[in-house]
Amino acid sequence: MITDYATLSSEYKEVLESEMVRYVKQLQAPSVVKEAMIYSLEAGGKRIRPMLVFAVLSSFGVDVNQGIPAAAAIEMIHTYSLIHDDLPCMDDDDLRRGKPTNHKVFGEAVAVLAGDALLTYSFQLIAEMNHPDVTAEKKLELIAEISKSAGAEGMVGGQIADMEGENKQLTLEELEYMHEHKTGKLLQASILSGAILAGANTAQRDHLRKFAFHLGLAFQIRDDILDIEGTQELLGKPVGSDLTNHKSTYPALLTLKGAKDKLSEQVQLAHSALAATNLPTIILGELTDMIANRNH
Amino acid sequence: MITDYATLSSEYKEVLESEMVRYVKQLQAPSVVKEAMIYSLEAGGKRIRPMLVFAVLSSFGVDVNQGIPAAAAIEMIHTYSLIHDDLPCMDDDDLRRGKPTNHKVFGEAVAVLAGDALLTYSFQLIAEMNHPDVTAEKKLELIAEISKSAGAEGMVGGQIADMEGENKQLTLEELEYMHEHKTGKLLQASILSGAILAGANTAQRDHLRKFAFHLGLAFQIRDDILDIEGTQELLGKPVGSDLTNHKSTYPALLTLKGAKDKLSEQVQLAHSALAATNLPTIILGELTDMIANRNH
Repeated sequence: MITDYATLSSEYKEVLESEMVRYVKQLQAPSVVKEAMIYSLEAGGKRIRPMLVFAVLSSFGVDVNQGIPAAAAIEMIHTYSLIHDDLPCMDDDDLRRGKPTNHKVFGEAVAVLAGDALLTYSFQLIAEMNHPDVTAEKKLELIAEISKSAGAEGMVGGQIADMEGENKQLTLEELEYMHEHKTGKLLQASILSGAILAGANTAQRDHLRKFAFHLGLAFQIRDDILDIEGTQELLGKPVGSDLTNHKSTYPALLTLKGAKDKLSEQVQLAHSALAATNLPTIILGELTDMIANRNH
Repeated sequence: MITDYATLSSEYKEVLESEMVRYVKQLQAPSVVKEAMIYSLEAGGKRIRPMLVFAVLSSFGVDVNQGIPAAAAIEMIHTYSLIHDDLPCMDDDDLRRGKPTNHKVFGEAVAVLAGDALLTYSFQLIAEMNHPDVTAEKKLELIAEISKSAGAEGMVGGQIADMEGENKQLTLEELEYMHEHKTGKLLQASILSGAILAGANTAQRDHLRKFAFHLGLAFQIRDDILDIEGTQELLGKPVGSDLTNHKSTYPALLTLKGAKDKLSEQVQLAHSALAATNLPTIILGELTDMIANRNH
């Protein structure tokens, strides 16, 4: 059993990445759409969502390999959301993690369709996954949880709220709604997917959902702080862009010190929720601290 | 038991339409994305895909109500594909069925997201459907069939092929690949969804898949013929637009007479495949003739 993040990441990050590429390569589809899908899947990143799936499975002592299709599906949904988010009619970004964005390389039409294909494929992957311990009921629970978190009640709703909040000062409550949906829900779905696969009981799921909520907030507050304190080199985007773009942020609403205090508070609440599960959640704790202290 | 198309349509078309709106209204999501989703779901149309689900269920003597969530899911996927297809970076259409397209009313960003939300919701609807006769295994089969038909191996692949074929003369084989995927696959998924819900055996599914293939081709050949022989008033778009847009069509490749011959042939093959099922498929036969003879 794996009990630390470094081992989990070194054993499964590359496996996940090569599995995602393999899943796409096996599609009988025009090559340009497969290339566009793979281009963005290979753009890297920390793979936080898959790692959360794996870390939860590992806390329950369940074989991490069982989580690969669900983790890949969630990462595909995250990737599709970045492709659509970068489009000229949305954030109009030319660069993502230092590489040209999907539509810059493949054109807007292919980028829209590659995003659509990734989203669609994610549900097919779960429906078709084949593991003796994963019952039909569990697969349906995964699909229900992930689709709800990714759709209008989740990530898409958060993106709408983000757009509606542009160039106006949000209240703390509005800012929290936006983040909880735009990034929080899919993080939650990752953690819950691990719980579903592991057969967690209701109490464990409640604690993990609470953990996910605080983790998501911590993630976002850290993001806002980095936009002030980070370096362009590490972030891959200009520092201070939130201010330039008149974005509502935690430091703007709470001051930088207030934002840092809130971050510490959320990290503590996340750790308390983990402790309440009575599971060996060392890796999830490490992931929480990593997210709260990251410099990019 | 319903044995003719007029009764089936009059009893279930409006039910389906109001159910789709009800499903969206119950979402806890920003109102603009719900309005945009509903706007396009209410844009009308013949609802051929849901009717195919219902007609297959009816052939098996299965309660048609069982098919409503799957039929709604497929119609949502069809609707999302129209929203994304109409975007400026795709076909750049201002009108759809005589009404302003989604992005003309809500803006491009909301249109992209409303499409994403409809696609995502379709899988949630199936995963969460609740009917004593629909087992978890059947729901997963539905999700696998529909996602495969909608994604890179199906409809999205067909849209890519359509774009790649612009301004160049396709071979008959390339034209057929494009249509079989762009419109055929989702028609097939509708028919197969009925078969899955009804518990059709392998032979029946094979015959129905064959039926769907010929029906899809007939649908598209008729579409191409209408672009020459139809009237703008009934079509809701200018006649002859395929020629103006240098689109490859059956009449262009086969002559108008050749296209009409091929249409008759496909209709006959569709009817033969239906006969081979040994089921009372009167409504599916009526739907075939309607599609082959429609004037819009």
